Amino acid sequence: MFEFMTIRELYDLIKTNNILEMDSLQYVQLQGWIRTNRCNGSVGFIELNDGTFFKNCQLVYTPQLANFSEISKCLTGAALTVIGKFKLTPENKQPFEIELTEATIEASCSNDYPLQKKRHSLEYLRDLAHLRVRTNTFSAVFRVRSSLAMALHEFFQNQGFVYVQTPIITGNDAEGAGEVFTVTTRKDDKYDQDFFGKRASLTVSGQLHVEAYALAFRDVYTFGPTFRAENSNTKKHANEFWMCEPEIAFADLEDDMNLMEDMIKYCIQYVFDNCSEEMEFFNNFIDKDHTLIERLKKVLDSSFARINYSDALQQLKAVEDQFENKVFWGMDIQTEHEKYLTEKYGPVFVMNYPKESKAFYMRLNDDNKTVAATDLLMPVVGELCGGSQREERYDVLLNRMNEMGVPVSSLQWYLDLRKYGCCQHAGFGVGFERLLMYITSMENIRDVLSYPRTPRNLQF
Amino acid sequence: MFEFMTIRELYDLIKTNNILEMDSLQYVQLQGWIRTNRCNGSVGFIELNDGTFFKNCQLVYTPQLANFSEISKCLTGAALTVIGKFKLTPENKQPFEIELTEATIEASCSNDYPLQKKRHSLEYLRDLAHLRVRTNTFSAVFRVRSSLAMALHEFFQNQGFVYVQTPIITGNDAEGAGEVFTVTTRKDDKYDQDFFGKRASLTVSGQLHVEAYALAFRDVYTFGPTFRAENSNTKKHANEFWMCEPEIAFADLEDDMNLMEDMIKYCIQYVFDNCSEEMEFFNNFIDKDHTLIERLKKVLDSSFARINYSDALQQLKAVEDQFENKVFWGMDIQTEHEKYLTEKYGPVFVMNYPKESKAFYMRLNDDNKTVAATDLLMPVVGELCGGSQREERYDVLLNRMNEMGVPVSSLQWYLDLRKYGCCQHAGFGVGFERLLMYITSMENIRDVLSYPRTPRNLQF
Repeated sequence: MFEFMTIRELYDLIKTNNILEMDSLQYVQLQGWIRTNRCNGSVGFIELNDGTFFKNCQLVYTPQLANFSEISKCLTGAALTVIGKFKLTPENKQPFEIELTEATIEASCSNDYPLQKKRHSLEYLRDLAHLRVRTNTFSAVFRVRSSLAMALHEFFQNQGFVYVQTPIITGNDAEGAGEVFTVTTRKDDKYDQDFFGKRASLTVSGQLHVEAYALAFRDVYTFGPTFRAENSNTKKHANEFWMCEPEIAFADLEDDMNLMEDMIKYCIQYVFDNCSEEMEFFNNFIDKDHTLIERLKKVLDSSFARINYSDALQQLKAVEDQFENKVFWGMDIQTEHEKYLTEKYGPVFVMNYPKESKAFYMRLNDDNKTVAATDLLMPVVGELCGGSQREERYDVLLNRMNEMGVPVSSLQWYLDLRKYGCCQHAGFGVGFERLLMYITSMENIRDVLSYPRTPRNLQF
Repeated sequence: MFEFMTIRELYDLIKTNNILEMDSLQYVQLQGWIRTNRCNGSVGFIELNDGTFFKNCQLVYTPQLANFSEISKCLTGAALTVIGKFKLTPENKQPFEIELTEATIEASCSNDYPLQKKRHSLEYLRDLAHLRVRTNTFSAVFRVRSSLAMALHEFFQNQGFVYVQTPIITGNDAEGAGEVFTVTTRKDDKYDQDFFGKRASLTVSGQLHVEAYALAFRDVYTFGPTFRAENSNTKKHANEFWMCEPEIAFADLEDDMNLMEDMIKYCIQYVFDNCSEEMEFFNNFIDKDHTLIERLKKVLDSSFARINYSDALQQLKAVEDQFENKVFWGMDIQTEHEKYLTEKYGPVFVMNYPKESKAFYMRLNDDNKTVAATDLLMPVVGELCGGSQREERYDVLLNRMNEMGVPVSSLQWYLDLRKYGCCQHAGFGVGFERLLMYITSMENIRDVLSYPRTPRNLQF
């Protein structure tokens, strides 16, 4: 009689031009939620979205429908199960429609539903974190987010990387990355009597923990939530976000950059392949210049440049006049400098930074001034991710920890790794939301996290 | 001259009997860590593990090697890069060996290396969380863990499920699952002045948050860390562990059970396909009866039984004498009862439990006494996972929350979902470590977590 179909399956028939299948398809059953419903008394049109596909499916109904009147009064947001005749409509904007023969209301929608037909601002929708994913923008964001996560897993697992789930609760006081949240069952700071018998905090990175696994499995990666207790309200910062941190053994900074470049390209291609409707939407409605797809395709075709920090500084110095900030060796590369470099080079790795600006675990170069670290700068958005070769020499690492005031006692196990077959190894971290924002052109991190955590914001 | 190969690649040639490739293979380069090294002065043998494969590769060296003496003194744990001749040895235990022509020590290993040749107890290795993954047992555990994670992602994504990363920090006071950790930047309990302006805690489940996404995408799942602040020291409890929580819309309890059954089978098959050496190891060296593989294969071939709690109780009552615990309607099903039921049925879903023993969000059945919940019981291990249809009726849910003392104010958004197109939906949660323990026969949760978190245990 009828076949249950998802809207994705119907669009797949159209996309693959599966004429045989379409011809045999008579009556279909669909389930979904009403995006819009308009009826002039003799004919009604429902835009139904079933969650499986970015686009809606048009349902057409007439007074021949037994519960015509009831259906015509159905509000945006209501859930329906319908049966109808599948009809190709090549002359219309939508390639097909469903002429309803049956319609059942699975769940009605209250008339105070905050997502009405009109366009809502992203800011307004942030207060509706439980509902906003029903809109086009957030439906696109969170489907791409899911695909991008899968892209990372596939990229690494296809090459034999082992996924390591490093702990969230950590006793390592300082991993060198800013302020941390305390995890406690007490109402005071007597941490020696606390649950873990010492002060516990939320991790800022799984890198130190995962290095131990790279020294056993060779190639590993983490993918999980990380935390910063920074009280900053910018578009790029949230207090809870996801990081992916690959770590590779028998590898140096060049291997690290190769992996980073391959990973970025794989992710872009994967999202193109799996979320083409969503990417078109981001290109046409989110990206300011409507050049998102063009830019990403260019990245796929490019070979990422690689320059030393010192060389980059020389080049910047030569055109210092065009910058607001002075150029001097030792400085952080600022947004305006990133812009200059990426306009010149396209995607570019800057390598071998002054040791003062980088973390204690990065490998000290022979010049004793720089470390084997790299940041990947991308056109338009700037820094996308960063990595380093790790310091594998016990004495050098211990010295750096003491120089930088990193407490040794809670990281003795990390130091000890240097005593036991610690081959050269390297790794990097990519902020998952930053990568997602890069690929979607979404500008505020609050709009790519399911329920974002920012200062004084814990509504859901 | 030579080709870089991993030990996995070499074994793949053997397994696929790729004669052409093997014939053309002359000299190979390998990198890895010494598991054992013995030398009688005229010939030496190194068992090298490179992390890509469960098994080692045998390296053979003689005084013809330029640094023969140095290599012969290399200790267990040291990292090497070697070049040698690939030689099939069909008459030996190992199908091939490498006759070294070059060997470079990448990193030596201190002679206080705690992982010596002799067998160490799992308890002893727990204090070496940074090194234990270099042993056979933990290498097997953590490769299967990685594969099992990928199995879950593939299972869901292949069917169009959207992966939702629900928040770790939550403001929902009580999700009905025991004690929670507080997340704070203060040293007292003035939470209104705290980072988020209210008390924040670590999540015990992503379910409530992900329900909102199921009501937009239809089929979704979470996969992430969850926390319990319970001060219990059992083999099955850790304070930090991973959960996978699928949630499906337009679905009832039966759909939920179908999904659970499919998922379990997919995971088992995936691990068989991707970790056959590891599974043989677990069968022969970890499983008490050496029947692990046989048991899991039986599960693959079985159709999981489904019985109502009330029917199960009647059956248990009929043989009450054989149990230590009395059988009465309303009781929790104990280990001995699980054993009886699974011996009778094999894998079995028990459905429709007394509402008193279950969570507030589970759908109240028409009898007003039971809820549409299910637990999956497996032979030998008992309960593996549980799920329920969710209460989609606003008034019924509100009533249950009040009955059970669940604070409504912080979950108003969750209640509100019931006003806006809340079709019937269902979901379940599977403890990732429990599933991993089931598939590997590992008995202590501390041995399947990279750095386990248990009371007063935060060494790493």
